[in-house]
Amino acid sequence: MVTKNDIEQAHKLIAKYIHRTPILTNTSINAMVGAELFFKCENFQKIGAFKIRGGMNAALSLSPEKLANGIATHSSGNHAQAIAFAARELGVKAYIVMPENAPAVKVKAVQGYGAEISFCQPNQAAREATVQKIVEATGAAFIHPFDNDRVIGGQATCVKEMIEDMPQLAVVVAPVGGGGLLSGTALGAHYFGENIQVYAGEPEGAADAVLSFKTGKVEKAPFVNTIADGLMTSLSERTLGIIKTYVKDIFLVSEEEIKGALRLVYERMKIVVEPSCVVPLAAVLKNKAVFEGKKTGIILTGGNVDLSAFGEWFQQ
Amino acid sequence: MVTKNDIEQAHKLIAKYIHRTPILTNTSINAMVGAELFFKCENFQKIGAFKIRGGMNAALSLSPEKLANGIATHSSGNHAQAIAFAARELGVKAYIVMPENAPAVKVKAVQGYGAEISFCQPNQAAREATVQKIVEATGAAFIHPFDNDRVIGGQATCVKEMIEDMPQLAVVVAPVGGGGLLSGTALGAHYFGENIQVYAGEPEGAADAVLSFKTGKVEKAPFVNTIADGLMTSLSERTLGIIKTYVKDIFLVSEEEIKGALRLVYERMKIVVEPSCVVPLAAVLKNKAVFEGKKTGIILTGGNVDLSAFGEWFQQ
Repeated sequence: MVTKNDIEQAHKLIAKYIHRTPILTNTSINAMVGAELFFKCENFQKIGAFKIRGGMNAALSLSPEKLANGIATHSSGNHAQAIAFAARELGVKAYIVMPENAPAVKVKAVQGYGAEISFCQPNQAAREATVQKIVEATGAAFIHPFDNDRVIGGQATCVKEMIEDMPQLAVVVAPVGGGGLLSGTALGAHYFGENIQVYAGEPEGAADAVLSFKTGKVEKAPFVNTIADGLMTSLSERTLGIIKTYVKDIFLVSEEEIKGALRLVYERMKIVVEPSCVVPLAAVLKNKAVFEGKKTGIILTGGNVDLSAFGEWFQQ
Repeated sequence: MVTKNDIEQAHKLIAKYIHRTPILTNTSINAMVGAELFFKCENFQKIGAFKIRGGMNAALSLSPEKLANGIATHSSGNHAQAIAFAARELGVKAYIVMPENAPAVKVKAVQGYGAEISFCQPNQAAREATVQKIVEATGAAFIHPFDNDRVIGGQATCVKEMIEDMPQLAVVVAPVGGGGLLSGTALGAHYFGENIQVYAGEPEGAADAVLSFKTGKVEKAPFVNTIADGLMTSLSERTLGIIKTYVKDIFLVSEEEIKGALRLVYERMKIVVEPSCVVPLAAVLKNKAVFEGKKTGIILTGGNVDLSAFGEWFQQ
């Protein structure tokens, strides 16, 4: 289990590699919700997403011998960039397994950090088998996107910063995919906050966490189809265990609600965020009574977005 | 002529109505240019654009008797919002003349501030005639979008803030439409800076200012066709007079260069800006030798953008 000290150590370890991201507020969104919202802007983070926190902490926690052979992961998203970035910073090789249908823009970003990319069939089994082969051949250290205590401890530094900057927070809301950020946030809020309640938002089109939260065991989503491409993964035993204990509730939101929240952030806050990122705001807007009058922290997780998709998301 | 004292007074007058907007930097864009760029983020300003500075200063400078009958202007863009906002803040009526083809999103924003909108044919003569009629009928005070010393003095407070926050600036670049911001910036840099050179960027598809700058008299653009919808207007004698004296040069940029700069700001800086806003950055990227090694301030003028247009701007 990730301890308070683990998170404090993680924060010290990664400090020089990350930005201390700002917290923004918006009067008109506050008025819509009837609460004071505090947006932690991880879209302004290095690599454009919070994932650098966990990836960097995991890489820096490896022994020099382990690290020397490089680091590896499978991801089509921000974790791939985090591992590629970490490897470049530490002067070792990065091996990234990406599904062959990964968006060109993400492949380009990972290549930009100098990582070696292996493409595989777009399914979980192929990803795992491919990375396994690479690890065996190269001796690289595998860093799982979320099923890893160092990753969870790293992600927890985000809520730690929020609490340091806004000690009066009553609630924090994070999105949930594999649960690395959510479990880290829940632990961080528990260790560093005073009775902070942690909630999560999840897309209806990737509703595994809400189900697992109810049944108490890791479940698959009934179907997966959402523009929140960072939240398609299922929980692991490790993340579910933490979430069951420390998370108050998980709210589902529809694709229309995600698009509405996305439009709100672009139009009112004038910042670029990715769809996964606004799922917590969509959840807050849908469940105003829960948050009314409360100082509510919202983690805006990232801003790595394919601009050419906007035409579809924001039709007139 | 707007004096140093006029700008100082304007800044005091409007202080409580505006945000002190942040200055952002971006390592990768710096590396592309070979200069240190400092982006003044007026996209985060009240109403989403710098225009509130000039509009508010002009409204606040009216006598109570003049103000009592309300304020009026013609504009399809951010100045309309500025006047509507100012009127609401001061508890008077706003009369806004908009062309009948103005984007719904802008009409909605102006209505949102409670202004009374009159539609007219989409040409300059119709705009002026319509506003003239309204002024005669209501006694409202007309506040021109740029051909007004109070407006110019208000816009100048933007560069004043930049110099206060970054006294070592060597260059400042602004976009030019009617020249209100550019002339205010040139005067502000002259009064508050130490040998700061002021440059402008202008779209090839609205190239009146570059022509007027060369011939020394107010010229029309050879043609008007640009996504930089805030920069379609021509200079006035007043703004050209200041620009001729205090601006070093005006650089033209193509539509492709505007789109490229727009993509850069969205992808690297993760902030929402409107096309007019990135014309200075496009000019800097096109003329690197001029800016190389210099601490360069860039005014990001606004972020009021129609999200449904992104599909067209950012095709894959």
